[in-house]
Amino acid sequence: MRAGQRRMKAAVWHGPRDVRIAEVDVPTLQEGQVLVEVAYCGICGSDLHEYADGPHAIPVAEPHPGSGATAPLILGHEFCGTVAALGPSVTGLTMGDRVAVEPNYRCGACPRCRAGEYNICRHFGFAGLMGNGGMAEYAAIPAYMAHRLPDSVSLEQAALFEPASVALHALRRAGTTPETVAVVGLGPVGLLTVLLAAERKVPRIVAVDVSAARLRRAAGFGATGLIDPGLEGDAGKRIRELTDGEGVDVAFEAVGSETALRTCLGATRRGGRVVLIGLAPKVSLDTFALVNNEQSIISSVGYRDTYPELIRLVAEKRLDLTPVVTSTIGLDALIPSGFEALLKSPGNQVKIIVDPLAHRAEAPLLTPSAAKSEGR
Amino acid sequence: MRAGQRRMKAAVWHGPRDVRIAEVDVPTLQEGQVLVEVAYCGICGSDLHEYADGPHAIPVAEPHPGSGATAPLILGHEFCGTVAALGPSVTGLTMGDRVAVEPNYRCGACPRCRAGEYNICRHFGFAGLMGNGGMAEYAAIPAYMAHRLPDSVSLEQAALFEPASVALHALRRAGTTPETVAVVGLGPVGLLTVLLAAERKVPRIVAVDVSAARLRRAAGFGATGLIDPGLEGDAGKRIRELTDGEGVDVAFEAVGSETALRTCLGATRRGGRVVLIGLAPKVSLDTFALVNNEQSIISSVGYRDTYPELIRLVAEKRLDLTPVVTSTIGLDALIPSGFEALLKSPGNQVKIIVDPLAHRAEAPLLTPSAAKSEGR
Repeated sequence: MRAGQRRMKAAVWHGPRDVRIAEVDVPTLQEGQVLVEVAYCGICGSDLHEYADGPHAIPVAEPHPGSGATAPLILGHEFCGTVAALGPSVTGLTMGDRVAVEPNYRCGACPRCRAGEYNICRHFGFAGLMGNGGMAEYAAIPAYMAHRLPDSVSLEQAALFEPASVALHALRRAGTTPETVAVVGLGPVGLLTVLLAAERKVPRIVAVDVSAARLRRAAGFGATGLIDPGLEGDAGKRIRELTDGEGVDVAFEAVGSETALRTCLGATRRGGRVVLIGLAPKVSLDTFALVNNEQSIISSVGYRDTYPELIRLVAEKRLDLTPVVTSTIGLDALIPSGFEALLKSPGNQVKIIVDPLAHRAEAPLLTPSAAKSEGR
Repeated sequence: MRAGQRRMKAAVWHGPRDVRIAEVDVPTLQEGQVLVEVAYCGICGSDLHEYADGPHAIPVAEPHPGSGATAPLILGHEFCGTVAALGPSVTGLTMGDRVAVEPNYRCGACPRCRAGEYNICRHFGFAGLMGNGGMAEYAAIPAYMAHRLPDSVSLEQAALFEPASVALHALRRAGTTPETVAVVGLGPVGLLTVLLAAERKVPRIVAVDVSAARLRRAAGFGATGLIDPGLEGDAGKRIRELTDGEGVDVAFEAVGSETALRTCLGATRRGGRVVLIGLAPKVSLDTFALVNNEQSIISSVGYRDTYPELIRLVAEKRLDLTPVVTSTIGLDALIPSGFEALLKSPGNQVKIIVDPLAHRAEAPLLTPSAAKSEGR
């Protein structure tokens, strides 16, 4: 530890089942970085996978080209907060700005970045998985990741922009706004897909999950039809029945399994599209039926250019993301009330968010002005 | 045989390896039908499959809803000719009109037909597979199938409009005109995809096939890169090398095999599209890689609204389809010089077309005026 280096609490991934709530140095800012005092950081399924049986995306052998980091590293990529310090050469942001963090690294130079498709940058990665993230009191991020929030958008809303971005990108990948959709799998991203489809005034939204609690939530978010495949058997067939025998224009696969993909294909009309959000490892596909029905399988990974639209929708009060949050916990509770709770009974929760400053009450370790001098 | 019924030669499918060149009645026209004196009828891979080990698409148990027919029926769906008689209620066509036949049945009433997507009509089917077709001196078709040809478009060109439509529809399904494409499989449709991509000024067109003869043809049709996977190993990898390490925007799978699909996915860039034209029965798919690379699989079946564009391209001399024809045979030669030749050495031929009137020389069985009275 360098002389005068401030310390902070953080959730540091060392290995599977070895995430430590530890005191670490507040990061020193590099060229083009800002220090964000984290208000909230959501727990994502990816974090849970890294905790349970990682590493999956976390770099352990070689540093990730986007971050230069290897484990151990600070988890958490769904975060927002307040600008607490500006690194060299940062423009367009001011101390005290409230910001939502869009945690994608991007090289800016590869063909996909040059085409604006930075979500599939050659060095694709997330702060909080491939580099240090937001399950900490402070996070140093490239300034390009920070989206300033207008006064009309709360940090409680901004805490959900990252998973909402996944849903919004998937809806965009589906093409022109459909008349009928099915959402198969009602984890946070599935539920947010229902919510955003409802905001887009999709007339028929059929939600599919084996959890009655999640189906109820989907109904609250705007689903017009609910199907529990555990009770109703062939969900694809039921969805076709609910859509005049035709099938839906678009089905979203938000589980990541061959069964869910089958349901989606069975639910989708001729000429329709299945959007893959979930990450099934391998599937067996009846391409003969796929081609004869002229169905397409569209992949959706991450997001791009979604934060401005989400900020606008929330500012215009057309979208309220806060009902997605079912629990807010402090950093110290991350393992028992976050990861372990989600592993034990995933159906009980939608989104758990961490408030890394909860333990500090009214006495922050670092004031914005101190942070500012720290960062310079 | 009814009194006065005229007779004609036709290739009638009775079963696998049982296609008979027979004398049958010239069809009597129904409401809305026209009689076409067939100039040419191409042999399609589907015809070959029906000959070799059908029935695949040919209805044997229940009549096809589009045609009302069951086997035995007259093969051939790639045809063109001259209007020889008009049935009741036909407007917009005149005796002697030269027409290209777009052989899709369509119900006109189902949701897809109402949306203009008649290629995926609920009663989808082809004259010449699900009903009587064009390997005959005459064919009775619904008038909506007939596209009148301007003087500047020959019947030799129109004979290729059906397979060219498959290629054109696939190119359209790929979305905005790509910068780089791969065409995997250089049967007639693959070669026509190369030809039409070149017409659209796609700068880089990589053609893949194990036949040196077909690769040479692809070069003649505008391919800028040629790959023989038998000689070069991993074709996907080679294609990426040929495209600055990135991969192509779009790969066309024109074989119908898991290997070809793998090549396509390996050849396609992040965010790119694989267009499935071929009918692989079942494939195993690495969805994890698919999603992480945000690749999409777009199906393409048949075609819609393609004939007007093909007529225009040929009329404007921007497209010459005739080099695709490698052999023209009479009906009597269909089995030995058509089906059997294609089964024995498919690489030697691209498109064999049948001239059903070849045997008649200058003495037609039926004059247009006789046909006219026949049909009324």
